Amino acid sequence: MIQPFDDVYFMKKAYQEAENAFDKGEIPVGAIIVLKNQIIARAHNLTETLNDVTAHAEMQAFTAAADFLGGKYLKDCVLYVTLEPCQMCAGASYWTQIGKIVYGASEPERGFINLKTSLHPKTKVIGGILENECLQLLKRFFIEKRNLN
Amino acid sequence: MIQPFDDVYFMKKAYQEAENAFDKGEIPVGAIIVLKNQIIARAHNLTETLNDVTAHAEMQAFTAAADFLGGKYLKDCVLYVTLEPCQMCAGASYWTQIGKIVYGASEPERGFINLKTSLHPKTKVIGGILENECLQLLKRFFIEKRNLN
Repeated sequence: MIQPFDDVYFMKKAYQEAENAFDKGEIPVGAIIVLKNQIIARAHNLTETLNDVTAHAEMQAFTAAADFLGGKYLKDCVLYVTLEPCQMCAGASYWTQIGKIVYGASEPERGFINLKTSLHPKTKVIGGILENECLQLLKRFFIEKRNLN
Repeated sequence: MIQPFDDVYFMKKAYQEAENAFDKGEIPVGAIIVLKNQIIARAHNLTETLNDVTAHAEMQAFTAAADFLGGKYLKDCVLYVTLEPCQMCAGASYWTQIGKIVYGASEPERGFINLKTSLHPKTKVIGGILENECLQLLKRFFIEKRNLN
């Protein structure tokens, strides 16, 4: 049977959110949260717009998903995010008890894997979905930003 | 010279915020942010009220302080919080570049110290200010909660 809703399909939706961030001059990171193949939250990085370092895509997506569900745990949900989450976002995912995290590009410096942030024991992790596309968008952002300054 | 504004003075203000959380049936953790002896943000845990696991006292205080200052970095600020921050809040503090974190009670299980969350290199840390009072308030909360159920 053909399965139209796979990790690549949903990562493309997160990527669209990253493009929205790009268009606003924000570091282009996008996130969505999926429950039973339904997107229940979409968000992108808004740290500049909101003047708030906590306004990462994932943090907003967690808040929006909990609001949608009316319960604060996201046990059966999947987070798709274009960049490996940082300590703050991975730490938040612990509290949400999210079922799975799927990320695109790796973040060796500030990402949760090398910094060894502890996830909830029930959270599975998959990385590298559309890795190149997610990374190229970030690279393009920083090149354009450098050329403007 | 008498210095009325010391760590104990400001921790008492954070403790008042924790009491506000207690009165709302929230796990009693309070936080304030201080810049040059002026309190620029006050917050308490609102995870139940807002149905949002990211609504820790510190996260709200960071957002409020940045909003007050009109800039997203808190380099010259001090966070006073009644409980040792978790990975999420310590991870957020990294992004704020906050100058100092002063906490009350330790949190050996989910606190950032044992979980080795990396702080900003310029962030100093002091723990144990009004430790017993902060801990007793938490203990009282959980005892009362247990007796109600």
